[in-house]
Amino acid sequence: MWRDLAALGRDSGSGGYRRYAWTAADADCRAWFRSQAETRGLTYELDRNGNQWAWLGDPFAGDAVVTGSHLDSVPDGGAFDGPLGVVSSFAALDELRRRGARFTRPLAITNFGDEEGARFGLACVGSRLTAGQLTVEKAHELRDGDGVPLPRAMEAAGHDPATIGPDPERLARIGAFIELHVEQGRSLDLSGDPVGIASAIWPHGRWRFDFRGEANHAGTTRLADRRDPMLTYAETVLAARREAELAGALATFGKVSVEPNGVNAIPSLVRGWLDSRAADQSALDTVVAGVEAAARACADRAGIELRVVRESFTPVVEFEHALRDELAKILTNRPPSAATAATAATATATAGAAATVPVLGTGAGHDAGILSGSIPTAMLFVRNPTGISHSPAEFAAEDDCVAGILALADVLEGLACR
Amino acid sequence: MWRDLAALGRDSGSGGYRRYAWTAADADCRAWFRSQAETRGLTYELDRNGNQWAWLGDPFAGDAVVTGSHLDSVPDGGAFDGPLGVVSSFAALDELRRRGARFTRPLAITNFGDEEGARFGLACVGSRLTAGQLTVEKAHELRDGDGVPLPRAMEAAGHDPATIGPDPERLARIGAFIELHVEQGRSLDLSGDPVGIASAIWPHGRWRFDFRGEANHAGTTRLADRRDPMLTYAETVLAARREAELAGALATFGKVSVEPNGVNAIPSLVRGWLDSRAADQSALDTVVAGVEAAARACADRAGIELRVVRESFTPVVEFEHALRDELAKILTNRPPSAATAATAATATATAGAAATVPVLGTGAGHDAGILSGSIPTAMLFVRNPTGISHSPAEFAAEDDCVAGILALADVLEGLACR
Repeated sequence: MWRDLAALGRDSGSGGYRRYAWTAADADCRAWFRSQAETRGLTYELDRNGNQWAWLGDPFAGDAVVTGSHLDSVPDGGAFDGPLGVVSSFAALDELRRRGARFTRPLAITNFGDEEGARFGLACVGSRLTAGQLTVEKAHELRDGDGVPLPRAMEAAGHDPATIGPDPERLARIGAFIELHVEQGRSLDLSGDPVGIASAIWPHGRWRFDFRGEANHAGTTRLADRRDPMLTYAETVLAARREAELAGALATFGKVSVEPNGVNAIPSLVRGWLDSRAADQSALDTVVAGVEAAARACADRAGIELRVVRESFTPVVEFEHALRDELAKILTNRPPSAATAATAATATATAGAAATVPVLGTGAGHDAGILSGSIPTAMLFVRNPTGISHSPAEFAAEDDCVAGILALADVLEGLACR
Repeated sequence: MWRDLAALGRDSGSGGYRRYAWTAADADCRAWFRSQAETRGLTYELDRNGNQWAWLGDPFAGDAVVTGSHLDSVPDGGAFDGPLGVVSSFAALDELRRRGARFTRPLAITNFGDEEGARFGLACVGSRLTAGQLTVEKAHELRDGDGVPLPRAMEAAGHDPATIGPDPERLARIGAFIELHVEQGRSLDLSGDPVGIASAIWPHGRWRFDFRGEANHAGTTRLADRRDPMLTYAETVLAARREAELAGALATFGKVSVEPNGVNAIPSLVRGWLDSRAADQSALDTVVAGVEAAARACADRAGIELRVVRESFTPVVEFEHALRDELAKILTNRPPSAATAATAATATATAGAAATVPVLGTGAGHDAGILSGSIPTAMLFVRNPTGISHSPAEFAAEDDCVAGILALADVLEGLACR
């Protein structure tokens, strides 16, 4: 199952994945999902917003337990961010069937569309539309780097864009959504645990800094006569790092665009995007205000016009405490057979640690974060030994993946087979 | 004449010019040149390397006086850089005919192809090929941003790429090449002169700095675990400015490319291009060594791999002293009628200053610089009141353009009508 998926949308040069929404690679991943569903005799369904569902039991009975994640990727992304959750969902179902589990609630496995937002610039489009957190009008305005509007891309991929929009009736049928995800940091590695439970998603946002100077000839314009926005951009990049260090938060300039971007031209415009996140709102506010103040001071000194636009913002998401506590209870009181089935070595090593399961916050957004506004959601994280994510080097050990599958199986059994 | 040309290849948004080699805009400019030549009864010729020629007299008589410049532009370039030289050449010929000048040497007006190198990344391709400073093999390897090779672009524009190569026979027929150009700096403005003569082109070059770090998730990777090449790039941009200030030279990072260039991804690679120029070789060496040392120190501290590649380099070009002195003599001892024909007001204002013509160096490369290795060349500069160049805001006052035309006419008369 994993091997079939691993080949799809992979770039032969970088070794990374380029699975962007509504592309051929995306269609390949969707075909894989559908065949996994049908192989297991699950009822396959594509919803109006391009999310895929595989149902065990009656989809309309209500109080369903849903698990899943996404299959799309960032540019040159890794193999685990997203797919691990979908693959683990199918594997957990296989494990429960092996155990002869009897389901008392409907179960569904999902693949949410366009989670990474790599093509249209907005993350979690599939879950946002479903939850009514993205209006149809705004969705119609989304365009990719080549100027292709989202509706046209959907149409080209055979999906009718006229159907997109909020889907409260669907959400009303779901009692709990559990997303398993590779950890995108080293907390579990540092604590020595293969699996953890999410407490909250940090507040985070994206701010665009437009530094406008004056285009000029790089070979003839005296330094004193220049209004070079690249210098102010550089000072701002360094200020962001300083402010994040001071506040114990994260701040990154990972994307930049320059006009005219010629070797011998002083730029007229440098556009940099600040991504910032912090454990709480006040730390985040401090960082962003600090970066903007530093940028403005440098811009004023250098005769640069500065415009700062908040392009997106997500407040802190606290996952539902009742569901989180239920997961913790299930994963704490496990029979040794389930918790340690991975390998004998792992069993010995983690037998003591398995008594408690760590609860950790995360700086990354997820479909579970979007849906938590509408339904009870929870997340499981699988250890990432390097913490590397959004990179071809992203990795999780096989033992830990198995531990994740078994933990997810236990959770699903605890919730859906009571 | 100026008005017809002004409309070609102009972007309606920026107001700047996008006249890139072998594009439709380039073809429009070439058609304009040909029609200007034919209107004046000149013999039109397109040479093997895509340079245009308009001959008065026998092209094969030898010892020809040639004047001209280029019509292509940088991205969002101004109206004057290049076209002012071509337009002034035709206008100077009109002025000489008005004066009833009798030519004793053949005269040609030229439009050199692909001077700016905006499309294929290498400047002065037309003159370099002609002078044998760019081999046919290297020219065949040039590709534009979309991966289109130069030969295919030539073919698409109706030019046979099989003919390109050195043209020593053509150069042997030229006794002098004079290029008039708008100044790309404020020297003439500061000295109060409408026209000046070039002494030398500063040594200059382009260095590519590849900063290689580790791609990672911007929302989850602890600051301490990052190897973020954007930070090292930013420190290097600021170091370049400092080093240039210390050495009284120029250094610019005007072009940058980032991988994967995602808002929520720490970059794996930031590539920045340093353009640096100085009045002499030792100052230039000091700047580049200083920038590289600073970049390397920052890179080592941050775990970033740094690779520096010199992509191009042009040593100092001293224009031929004999020709330069001859121009100075012609322009110093001018009858008041010619030197001051622009307007009565200008005449009064510049009557005193006209006694000497300033001689100035320039940081910008030109076809005249390339050809100076093969034939005697000289340059005239026309005052640029703001010094702005390579920008839609590039400007020269009408009076100064007229003064440039008259100076060029005097020079051509002095050289070709003796």
